[in-house]
Amino acid sequence: MADDTPPDPAAGIRTEADLADPAYRQGLLALLGVLAYGELVGFLTIAQEAGFAPSTQDRVTAARIATQEFGHYERLAARIAELGGDPHKAMAPFVDAVDDWHRRAAPTDWSEALMKVYAGNSIANDFYREVSELVDPQTRELMLEVLEDSGQVEFAAGELRRAIAADERVAGRLALWGRRLIGEALSQAQRVAAENDDLMGLLVDTGSGYGLDLGGWMHMFTRLTDAHTARMEALGLSA
Amino acid sequence: MADDTPPDPAAGIRTEADLADPAYRQGLLALLGVLAYGELVGFLTIAQEAGFAPSTQDRVTAARIATQEFGHYERLAARIAELGGDPHKAMAPFVDAVDDWHRRAAPTDWSEALMKVYAGNSIANDFYREVSELVDPQTRELMLEVLEDSGQVEFAAGELRRAIAADERVAGRLALWGRRLIGEALSQAQRVAAENDDLMGLLVDTGSGYGLDLGGWMHMFTRLTDAHTARMEALGLSA
Repeated sequence: MADDTPPDPAAGIRTEADLADPAYRQGLLALLGVLAYGELVGFLTIAQEAGFAPSTQDRVTAARIATQEFGHYERLAARIAELGGDPHKAMAPFVDAVDDWHRRAAPTDWSEALMKVYAGNSIANDFYREVSELVDPQTRELMLEVLEDSGQVEFAAGELRRAIAADERVAGRLALWGRRLIGEALSQAQRVAAENDDLMGLLVDTGSGYGLDLGGWMHMFTRLTDAHTARMEALGLSA
Repeated sequence: MADDTPPDPAAGIRTEADLADPAYRQGLLALLGVLAYGELVGFLTIAQEAGFAPSTQDRVTAARIATQEFGHYERLAARIAELGGDPHKAMAPFVDAVDDWHRRAAPTDWSEALMKVYAGNSIANDFYREVSELVDPQTRELMLEVLEDSGQVEFAAGELRRAIAADERVAGRLALWGRRLIGEALSQAQRVAAENDDLMGLLVDTGSGYGLDLGGWMHMFTRLTDAHTARMEALGLSA
């Protein structure tokens, strides 16, 4: 009796079964598309920024980080294909916005490149972790695997600490740079999501019974920002 | 009797036993050092040049080629370490010359980047094949594995053919570019070898009983140049 209104412990949590829902699939392809393109461009920019590395050791480290990003790209693209999508079509709606961000956030030296790894990869990881709650278990597992940091954030933090200790003036410049980097990233991310109905439908509950409500969506960005602030402070920088 | 002058079928062919010879080891570390740095910079430049790629498909292909180059770097560096050397010390003498070449041979668009892959990787592969004859079997095997082309030269050739077919004027520009690219590479390679006693001692027989004689050394460069010319002609370009 009254089993028409059971308290469903899985309410709002997506399962494999949701993959049969075309709207969910579309949203998922959009999400995987933007993540895949982010990883691909992450590869390209870290590889480019490695040109600033002062030693062959640092060049090798940067190259290793870049190839890991490409490995992430390959896994996300494989998941898109597995879902019957085309990775390039899935990435297409996000190319301009992501390229634009990377152009605006182009480092001019090695310490700025390191800050981009430290602050940028960290916030991307936080975002992955948050959003992984909103997808089916198999996609979630992939997202959590892809965000697994293989030491690059720690490497960047160590190098940044050394650079700041060696020259006090570096701190002010890097604080500014970090602020710009993340400010641009967050506003760009919100704009991209808002403009993409598939993605918005996945992330924000506009009647589907899944996703964050608009308050939750804003709270997520607040959490991302707070964590970024804490990371900057951990380097002794004002955020 | 007379076994003090046996016709030795292995005369001039190095074996594992030669690794005990300090001069050979030094030469080998130098050779592996210059190859490793070439692969590392190959990674960096292909990744940078991927920025010119007109589509996400091409960016992915370029990224894949670049990560293969980094895989080659890792294998060469591992061999250096296995021989008791330090990869960064082994690369150090060649950093300026290789960087210098890449600066002079910096493509300004995607078709020039493709030509650098097509002509540059091919001639590097030819060089690996030639020089692999001069080293011990285990190092030779590694060199032959590393040069194994995973389709990038063919990919570049296909793209270049399309670009040339689409616009006749491209041919003249690419012919010029290919000539400059390889002219710089060969003269730089000869200069680098000539200035490095360890490397020269390995490659050219200056009394060791191993390596090419000076005529053979020059012939090798002639063969490299001839093969390059044939490859340019295969694209319908004058070399």
